[in-house]
Amino acid sequence: MSKPTLMRAPKAQDRVHIFDTTLRDGEQAPGFSMSPSEKLEVARMLERVRVDTIEAGFAAASPGDSEAIRLIASEITGPTICSLARAGEADVDAAARALEPARRKRLHVFLATSPIHREAKLKMSRLEVLRAIEKALVHARGRFDEIEFSAEDALRTEPDFLIEAMSCAASFGADVLNVPDTVGVSEPGEIRALFASLAQKVVRPEHVIFSAHCHNDLGLAVANSLAAVQGGARQIECSINGIGERAGNCSLEEVVMALRVRADIFGVDTHLDTTGLWPASQKLTRVTGAALSPNKAIVGKNAFSHEAGIHQHGMLSDRRTYEIMTPESVGSPGSALVLGKHSGKHALTQRLSQLGYQPDPDTLNTTFIAFKAYADEHGEATDADLVALMEQRSQSGCQWTVLRTELRTTTGPKPQQFARVELEHPERGRVSDIASGDGPMASAFAAVQRITGTTATVIGLETRLVNSPAGRDFVAEIRLDLNGKHVSGRARGPDVVTAAIDAFLFTLDRGQAFDTTGEAHPQPAIAV
Amino acid sequence: MSKPTLMRAPKAQDRVHIFDTTLRDGEQAPGFSMSPSEKLEVARMLERVRVDTIEAGFAAASPGDSEAIRLIASEITGPTICSLARAGEADVDAAARALEPARRKRLHVFLATSPIHREAKLKMSRLEVLRAIEKALVHARGRFDEIEFSAEDALRTEPDFLIEAMSCAASFGADVLNVPDTVGVSEPGEIRALFASLAQKVVRPEHVIFSAHCHNDLGLAVANSLAAVQGGARQIECSINGIGERAGNCSLEEVVMALRVRADIFGVDTHLDTTGLWPASQKLTRVTGAALSPNKAIVGKNAFSHEAGIHQHGMLSDRRTYEIMTPESVGSPGSALVLGKHSGKHALTQRLSQLGYQPDPDTLNTTFIAFKAYADEHGEATDADLVALMEQRSQSGCQWTVLRTELRTTTGPKPQQFARVELEHPERGRVSDIASGDGPMASAFAAVQRITGTTATVIGLETRLVNSPAGRDFVAEIRLDLNGKHVSGRARGPDVVTAAIDAFLFTLDRGQAFDTTGEAHPQPAIAV
Repeated sequence: MSKPTLMRAPKAQDRVHIFDTTLRDGEQAPGFSMSPSEKLEVARMLERVRVDTIEAGFAAASPGDSEAIRLIASEITGPTICSLARAGEADVDAAARALEPARRKRLHVFLATSPIHREAKLKMSRLEVLRAIEKALVHARGRFDEIEFSAEDALRTEPDFLIEAMSCAASFGADVLNVPDTVGVSEPGEIRALFASLAQKVVRPEHVIFSAHCHNDLGLAVANSLAAVQGGARQIECSINGIGERAGNCSLEEVVMALRVRADIFGVDTHLDTTGLWPASQKLTRVTGAALSPNKAIVGKNAFSHEAGIHQHGMLSDRRTYEIMTPESVGSPGSALVLGKHSGKHALTQRLSQLGYQPDPDTLNTTFIAFKAYADEHGEATDADLVALMEQRSQSGCQWTVLRTELRTTTGPKPQQFARVELEHPERGRVSDIASGDGPMASAFAAVQRITGTTATVIGLETRLVNSPAGRDFVAEIRLDLNGKHVSGRARGPDVVTAAIDAFLFTLDRGQAFDTTGEAHPQPAIAV
Repeated sequence: MSKPTLMRAPKAQDRVHIFDTTLRDGEQAPGFSMSPSEKLEVARMLERVRVDTIEAGFAAASPGDSEAIRLIASEITGPTICSLARAGEADVDAAARALEPARRKRLHVFLATSPIHREAKLKMSRLEVLRAIEKALVHARGRFDEIEFSAEDALRTEPDFLIEAMSCAASFGADVLNVPDTVGVSEPGEIRALFASLAQKVVRPEHVIFSAHCHNDLGLAVANSLAAVQGGARQIECSINGIGERAGNCSLEEVVMALRVRADIFGVDTHLDTTGLWPASQKLTRVTGAALSPNKAIVGKNAFSHEAGIHQHGMLSDRRTYEIMTPESVGSPGSALVLGKHSGKHALTQRLSQLGYQPDPDTLNTTFIAFKAYADEHGEATDADLVALMEQRSQSGCQWTVLRTELRTTTGPKPQQFARVELEHPERGRVSDIASGDGPMASAFAAVQRITGTTATVIGLETRLVNSPAGRDFVAEIRLDLNGKHVSGRARGPDVVTAAIDAFLFTLDRGQAFDTTGEAHPQPAIAV
């Protein structure tokens, strides 16, 4: 084997580093696909929270992943940017290319070490696994600021071989040794003992730290990550809202707040700005459109709902009767705050920030004017109103405009539904067409398909009523099949049919710029 | 003080008892209100799972709670049925009345013991707290099969006083001593030590067991409950989907599966039939309409999505590479199973059971005919199709029938939207009316309001596209304000506007039978 190398220490060891994998392990779960620009929006929130490392994707997995890593590496300057890679030269090269613009780059190489993975999946002996680790790390040497090695399925690896593999990785340049509980089977006592044993037995340069990557299949990912810290780990891999494969990863907001609220027990902390947690969760939920249970800890709708529930008596006497952390400490606006018509631009900016928006000055100005118009009419603006205002704005740019939707039901014993839709396009001018179908939605979509000549079909449609500046609007979220590619988008308006048509047209446009196959990533088999 | 009593042992101590509080702590969270008949539907699922005790409500809190307890006590014969009660004679009497039909009754008395609750909320001294416990338990003596005492905010109670209060409760007849982490602040190491200390120091008859009631504010409720078991607890209080105040309670499905999957570590188990877990979660989600994160452990949509993700290579080689429990072990049908046109009644019954339905023979027959018609046309029926079929069926019984919805948009520079709706009522016959409004939904609702003469207003409306026997349907979920009372309901059909009107009419009917004020329970301040 070639001569070991020793890289400079990436970080001090007296605090817990937060490695966020929302955009890699999180994004690869069904229903959580994001476009590169959407990933960048989420990355900005992670930067605001001050995570140490953002795993932005898996460069070798797809051109979309690679593009997203490069985009984030160009725009995000606070955290270290990381790409996942299998233990092979092509993957390391792909990661290096994608990370090229980053201020600080991390490579995350993984290889399975457990007997079941070695035998059933890799068909490799112990020695072959060690040689593959060596080869990948030697190939990576000097090309990244930090190198992390993950022993996939570490929790089910023979203890002696895990120590050997970790020592091997450390000797060939790994700065961070990650211990993934790939299948989410561990228990706090067990994982704490494992980390304590690794800390004692793995041969490594002094600056090397251990990292925990826990999956939540038994609901124990947060407890296991904390137990790992008690056993000596100084990096936690986690994700916003706990998203990830199957039951997801350790929830970033939960583990960070547990370390802070129970500093008396853990004695080490992160350096995160926790007031960005709620905004980050809001942003992710809006971008992915995925459901979030109201009882999700820290960031669920009910997480701080003392006021709405039945604890009012105690809470009025003394907030501490039921409150171990304030909503403000995680950036949640709480349930009581509503902006009124006398609220100024500063208050609006602050509230938008809590909701996960960081508008540029121009957008802020136009939003402020719209907000004032709304508040003048309604007296106040709720969070839903503000989100509606912002989402409307961020979705302009569609080529087609809906000029008119006319619905007609024929009378007689067998009534038929017709829709006449008139659209405008910068090049094609005004075009209208009439179609019939099973109800107003189907006939309107049929008319739009005739006008645009698209072969896209509607595979999902949801609408919901929200407050709006003009009274009440419908938000329509649509999912289209564009020749096998699934793309979603949304639009809004007072008329549910027109909102749905708007969403259709916006999503059609978006589909052309969006490099993804939706839920079927063309990725190789990975699961750190 | 009066002479202590000693009741007979409720259960053996060599296993972990599951006390389900979905219908009490879970139901009191904002957005989780259930009618008595809906609570009964959930209770049937809990009986199927074989939980030991169902806390069916808080009898003194409202007539609706009391009615639900009585209904469940009459119908459910497997588990013990329990009512919560404050430490006062009126509450104990209310619980005794509501539980009267139960085969086996438990009273759950609670009183806060922590200094902050004693001082800020109760304005009681330590001695007054002990006297209140004594008085309530003496009043309850002989009227219930089992008595449980909860020391609210036990985790923040002075250790010596907690031991004193627990010993007092045990000496006056408590069979179960519950230790609630009311504010969700504990950590596994801490709570394990607390239970070990209580087991050593609380003076009690031999049959008395300790119970953990953990809240999830830091994401640690499951780990804390398991740690309590390691410290000696033999009852866990938990709820389906982990619902409950704020971040919810310990998730029943997670804690039960953790005990089973890691039997090597815990050494004690429940006697639950875990194949009922997924159906119970499905039922609860449908009844409450509350969102469930796709990455929710055990019962989330993605919890077993190996196939859909990127683990296919490993899974195809050997399922054990990524699977620590099978979907079948928790009653999840997995993602691969689809019923086809050759599937028989047995297969349909089994799949409906997995989805949380237990149809009577008549309903099963008519559903089977509808399923066959659907499968003949489409070749197969997914879970969503079956749920749609069942929900349609279970929501018949509405007085009004929609005969026709006609939509009309006027032409000209300022088009107006009109809807003509024709309804039929068993007493009023056919009635139709026309109204205009801002889009097809608003005008259709206006027409329905004119016909029915209701003052109900729409405060929420969501629609989504699903597969149906006839092609595709919209499911419309509506939320109405009926003179300050909030009621929700749903309906479906190929036309989105007609489905919304159907949902409106169904919900209007339901409002009259549904004793609830929605999210604002008229309950006193409690939080065990």
